[in-house]
Amino acid sequence: MSEDKTLTMVTCTAPANMAVIKYWGKRDSDLILPINSSLSVTLHQDQLKTTTTAAISRDFKEDRLWLNGEEADVGHPRLQSCLREVRRLARKRRGGGDEDAAPLGLAYKVHIATENNFPTAAGLASSAAGYACLVYALARLYGVEGELSEVARQGSGSACRSMFGGFVQWHKGERPDGKDSVAQQVAPETHWPELRILVLVVSAEKKQVGSTAGMQTSVDTSPLLKHRAEALVPERIAHMVQHIRERDFEGFGQLTMRDSNQFHATCLDTFPPIFYLNDVSRRIIALAHRYNAHHGCTKVAYTFDAGPNAVIFALADTVAEFVEVVRRSFPPAPNGDRFLQGLPVGSASLAEELLSAVVLEPVPGALQYILHTKPGPGQRAGAAPA
Amino acid sequence: MSEDKTLTMVTCTAPANMAVIKYWGKRDSDLILPINSSLSVTLHQDQLKTTTTAAISRDFKEDRLWLNGEEADVGHPRLQSCLREVRRLARKRRGGGDEDAAPLGLAYKVHIATENNFPTAAGLASSAAGYACLVYALARLYGVEGELSEVARQGSGSACRSMFGGFVQWHKGERPDGKDSVAQQVAPETHWPELRILVLVVSAEKKQVGSTAGMQTSVDTSPLLKHRAEALVPERIAHMVQHIRERDFEGFGQLTMRDSNQFHATCLDTFPPIFYLNDVSRRIIALAHRYNAHHGCTKVAYTFDAGPNAVIFALADTVAEFVEVVRRSFPPAPNGDRFLQGLPVGSASLAEELLSAVVLEPVPGALQYILHTKPGPGQRAGAAPA
Repeated sequence: MSEDKTLTMVTCTAPANMAVIKYWGKRDSDLILPINSSLSVTLHQDQLKTTTTAAISRDFKEDRLWLNGEEADVGHPRLQSCLREVRRLARKRRGGGDEDAAPLGLAYKVHIATENNFPTAAGLASSAAGYACLVYALARLYGVEGELSEVARQGSGSACRSMFGGFVQWHKGERPDGKDSVAQQVAPETHWPELRILVLVVSAEKKQVGSTAGMQTSVDTSPLLKHRAEALVPERIAHMVQHIRERDFEGFGQLTMRDSNQFHATCLDTFPPIFYLNDVSRRIIALAHRYNAHHGCTKVAYTFDAGPNAVIFALADTVAEFVEVVRRSFPPAPNGDRFLQGLPVGSASLAEELLSAVVLEPVPGALQYILHTKPGPGQRAGAAPA
Repeated sequence: MSEDKTLTMVTCTAPANMAVIKYWGKRDSDLILPINSSLSVTLHQDQLKTTTTAAISRDFKEDRLWLNGEEADVGHPRLQSCLREVRRLARKRRGGGDEDAAPLGLAYKVHIATENNFPTAAGLASSAAGYACLVYALARLYGVEGELSEVARQGSGSACRSMFGGFVQWHKGERPDGKDSVAQQVAPETHWPELRILVLVVSAEKKQVGSTAGMQTSVDTSPLLKHRAEALVPERIAHMVQHIRERDFEGFGQLTMRDSNQFHATCLDTFPPIFYLNDVSRRIIALAHRYNAHHGCTKVAYTFDAGPNAVIFALADTVAEFVEVVRRSFPPAPNGDRFLQGLPVGSASLAEELLSAVVLEPVPGALQYILHTKPGPGQRAGAAPA
């Protein structure tokens, strides 16, 4: 970055990710250190991404932030943590700790504008993409390179997993300072080319209990969460890594569903209990089990984050049939011409016996839309606008 | 019982019970031995009871059974277990094991007719009342006295808790033969005279996954259930006994709600997951928490068995106000003149600040009716019809 221009600006994009072994609960809420490791699939940015532009200029009077076009509070503690950490790394790497040798830009105020192409705070990990993008943009702006997941983690825990493409593990780490609580790629997005992802958007409403407050209450009150984190997750992580390495959809899908259910079980064991699944979510779960039972194997696997929307994993050759099953089970509203978004889906005709075994009591209008995507790469630098 | 009459007949009644520390999972499914101890409140028979008439006669050609007026399969293995056990005890007590000295009636066929005054298999423990009543009726018919909860347990696990009034613990026991897996009264129904119970009937539909199949799947697949049974329930039982002895509604109510939530959490951790709560159940849970939060203490406590109906515990001086809160939150259908059943409920007017804090988004018609009852006595012998 040259520092003699009046304006230095970078634009980056970052992906959302969907955990298949869930993160729920912090052991340190300042540093955002989790009580267990987690593992996620990075979603392709062609369908879901955050775009962030960050600029510094000697003409800027104060740090400012815009979220989806509206100015927001730049003083948010987590945003400030990320800013402070990136600036600290910039000083350290330029000057070996000598503040005088730091780049001139560090004295300038920053303007940040960020946009999602998907609904905010609806259980689609928008904060993960947002903080991953923010940290990457700031790092490029200040010329910082290397391991950044530890910084992104301090914005939003799951953001550290959006720093990589494909299949990503966030190691819980053991150190009190969090230096070993970092994300690591298990396999790149090219590893499992047949894997597809369907986001079934049940509701774009903001969730009633945010993740931060919810997981704190769970840590404080749920004995089942404590047991899960200590005794159950380590083995699940090891199994999931193996299923991914072997591209074993049966094992991957089964464990993905079990872990989603267990996460929501710990929410219910929280006091007062937290419910993220609603009756439509439960209908999708039952539908997936009927569909798999009909086929005699795991053809689709659901997972739900802190919201009612389902994320379905399937192999490419299952997508057309399952999408048709979903369309028959949740017939779109008459004006639902955008019911299917994202990657193209072929047409499928359903056998009568499949229909009668799997499609029971259709509920018109229960789904807003389906988004078809696949695993994708980590964050990317875009061209800086002129 | 004299054996020279052509017909010997007895009629008994038995109560339902509602667990506050839940039973879910067997370690032996033939003997019905549970993986954890449980604790329940016996509901008053003035509102919920099973009535069973059993008769023997030399003129009867075969054993026969009627449930709510319709003939049913008398060959059901659990019913046969109860019949066999009571007849075995009759032989043993009459003759010290000598079969020849057994009462003549043991050679006769039995006719059994049983009726519930509440919906069957809707999460209201109808099988508990049913088997408790059956075993008591058979025991009186054959002149068997003494400990019968071990026999009732072999009909339906929770039936053993319906053999006593008030507050009842079912000890899980340690022996493989189940001789120590018996029910015991913790306190009689007179112990806590202010305690009241409201059954909020959400749906009288039969449940989708029966308890027997559901709990077996949970034992086979839920690691959280295993942990709950082994590590969490023993302490909860001890605390619950203490709360009951001290008539500590705050402690009793808190633990009742937590244990209900944890039971449903283990259902969700089951694979495939089991859902007994629906969106109306969840609204009732949220309403109870808002109501308690408004009052700054635990005024009402919910618990849900294997179905969507809520059972609410409260002290007598809370009932009128909370019933009005429920009526405002779930306005009865226009023909809902039987909305409130059971013990009388006084009228209450709600303060404006209570209404605005607690009654949000009413859902008309979501509740069928409310049944007001209280803890009651164990099974009773009725007058034998002429």
